[in-house]
Amino acid sequence: MKFKINRQVLLANLNKVQRAVNSKNPYLALTGIKFTLQDDQLELIGSNNDLSIRCIIKKGIQDEQVFEIEETGSAVINEKIICDIIKKIDSDVVEIMVTDNTAKIKSENSIFNINTIPSTDYPSFDFTFIGQPLSMDALELKTVLDQTLFACSDKESRPILTGLNISCSNNKLEFVATDTYRLSKKIVDTDYAESFRVTIAKVSLDEINRIIELGSLVHIYITDKKATFDLGDCTIITRLINGTYPDTSRLIPEQFDQILTINNSSLINSVDRVSILLNERNDIVKLNMKEDEVFISSKNSEAGSAIEKISAEDYGYEGNPLIISFSGHYLTEAARALNSEEISLHFTGDMKPIIIKSKTNSNLIQLILPVRTYN
Amino acid sequence: MKFKINRQVLLANLNKVQRAVNSKNPYLALTGIKFTLQDDQLELIGSNNDLSIRCIIKKGIQDEQVFEIEETGSAVINEKIICDIIKKIDSDVVEIMVTDNTAKIKSENSIFNINTIPSTDYPSFDFTFIGQPLSMDALELKTVLDQTLFACSDKESRPILTGLNISCSNNKLEFVATDTYRLSKKIVDTDYAESFRVTIAKVSLDEINRIIELGSLVHIYITDKKATFDLGDCTIITRLINGTYPDTSRLIPEQFDQILTINNSSLINSVDRVSILLNERNDIVKLNMKEDEVFISSKNSEAGSAIEKISAEDYGYEGNPLIISFSGHYLTEAARALNSEEISLHFTGDMKPIIIKSKTNSNLIQLILPVRTYN
Repeated sequence: MKFKINRQVLLANLNKVQRAVNSKNPYLALTGIKFTLQDDQLELIGSNNDLSIRCIIKKGIQDEQVFEIEETGSAVINEKIICDIIKKIDSDVVEIMVTDNTAKIKSENSIFNINTIPSTDYPSFDFTFIGQPLSMDALELKTVLDQTLFACSDKESRPILTGLNISCSNNKLEFVATDTYRLSKKIVDTDYAESFRVTIAKVSLDEINRIIELGSLVHIYITDKKATFDLGDCTIITRLINGTYPDTSRLIPEQFDQILTINNSSLINSVDRVSILLNERNDIVKLNMKEDEVFISSKNSEAGSAIEKISAEDYGYEGNPLIISFSGHYLTEAARALNSEEISLHFTGDMKPIIIKSKTNSNLIQLILPVRTYN
Repeated sequence: MKFKINRQVLLANLNKVQRAVNSKNPYLALTGIKFTLQDDQLELIGSNNDLSIRCIIKKGIQDEQVFEIEETGSAVINEKIICDIIKKIDSDVVEIMVTDNTAKIKSENSIFNINTIPSTDYPSFDFTFIGQPLSMDALELKTVLDQTLFACSDKESRPILTGLNISCSNNKLEFVATDTYRLSKKIVDTDYAESFRVTIAKVSLDEINRIIELGSLVHIYITDKKATFDLGDCTIITRLINGTYPDTSRLIPEQFDQILTINNSSLINSVDRVSILLNERNDIVKLNMKEDEVFISSKNSEAGSAIEKISAEDYGYEGNPLIISFSGHYLTEAARALNSEEISLHFTGDMKPIIIKSKTNSNLIQLILPVRTYN
């Protein structure tokens, strides 16, 4: 394998495929990036087996940039080292030659000789597109991921909950994340005609979220084993998580006894402040609501207590007085995800789910479960 | 204790004294900040026993800012909590009242009740100034610390080397840091007439370096147990490290066989690049110098090798050819500390100390020991 290429073009593509690589992967080949040079293109693949990313640099597509192919071939090169070299070398063009088990990387003033990993050790991944794709605008997909992924569980004890559940029926796409204490659900319209229900790992979707470029369409091909994301110059495969996702449709109450409409940043800042006294083991804040007064408070037997009054101009309250306690951290994450100036909290009792919504984001529901109020 | 104060004034002073506080200090009282309110001033103290910082906010000094003293007294309040509250509350003025074991911190919309630590548990520190001070311009002191402290040892096996050695005689102040593999030495003129030699912990000087404000004079009072830094509104005590500092005066050769004059950033960048293949256990780079060619290279049996040629316009070399190996990390730290566009490396053989200097910083010497070159 031997080629010359514009350094920035190579770097931009390496930066994408490297997102799938775990440098501590016990399987040596997967600590590398696989280069496959053909007559007219360079293919780069990075993978951790659950998530695989492929970028293709086609000859002539960026015709003002150097890309000269001298000898086709393939090689696997340590991800950290190749990315670091291409990032740091001081040259517009880089030449890469692989002979035997060594990659020689030449720039104007420097030569790196890197031990390669046999490319026969690299697993093969099938990046072909099967069936009809579900197409989403990149911004819409990013927004969905930003608004739901945080509610996935990070506990491996129930693997299915570490993923985002995506289902489609009747031209509605539904995205659900829950760790059993809170839930995020977003519904969007689609012209995709088929029905499916799959769960994709949050950690994979986090990486996809970082790679998606705004202003494009993302085509998603779903099979029963994997989802394939076509981002144009880049293709991403994620394995699906096995198992049955819990039915969450009946968790969300439809009628409410109390509604608190409140300025979002005022709520987030108040919860942040009374949380100063709290910690990871106890992050419970208490909301004490009457029509003419709303207080947020916290208590920690070691540190002390805090109470804050919400300014009258920042909220409106309908319903009987209510005292309810919940995780401050869950509330602020849900409130931030709604990304609206004004949000509303809906209650049906001090031990019933709290529903958080906003008028400007009516297709998004955040739910958090309260905890018992002791004092 | 009861007073009202401008929040920003209190915060700025808390931010200084908190630098001495370790929130994990096993001695509970030292996890707090001591407040002592007198008729005309508020004294704040933070300490970890080795380093103690005191700030005084005098009534009337910042006369446009609120500072109303209602009842004198003292209290020790958890450092993390009080700093976090004063930083985050949404109010120009804060009121602090301490009764029994509770501090009540009131702002416009919030009340925090914080459990305090008995102030009788707080150790007493003597912040009085004894003797004649050594006075240094703040910028000069900061520059000295930036140029030397990095060369201190971080190994507790020889505590004396974890400090900066400061000595004074014949109107010369000498600052020396060494971890036995490298050394930084800076000499500055002083009108201080007395002689002394003390060693102050790097970790304490790092904090002092962050607190010093440019444009002022720093007065340093040295006794045989401690050094007291008078920064005007802030006084800092550091304990001295016990023990005899090694004599380093004969380590520095006076005649050299080879001199490499080189563009500083070109050298740093080249060493950075060939270090891509290296790691913490092996960060050795090799310099191969002839009059018409200078190469920097590295080798790592697992990853591979790298070689870089220094551009002819970036260096000048005098002397016979020399091949010498050393820690790339030590070289770049020393080169950065010199903070000059051009630096010179002075050699007397492949196993003799390398001296690094610059014309614009002639009173600063950086020394690094080479290692044996194997290949």
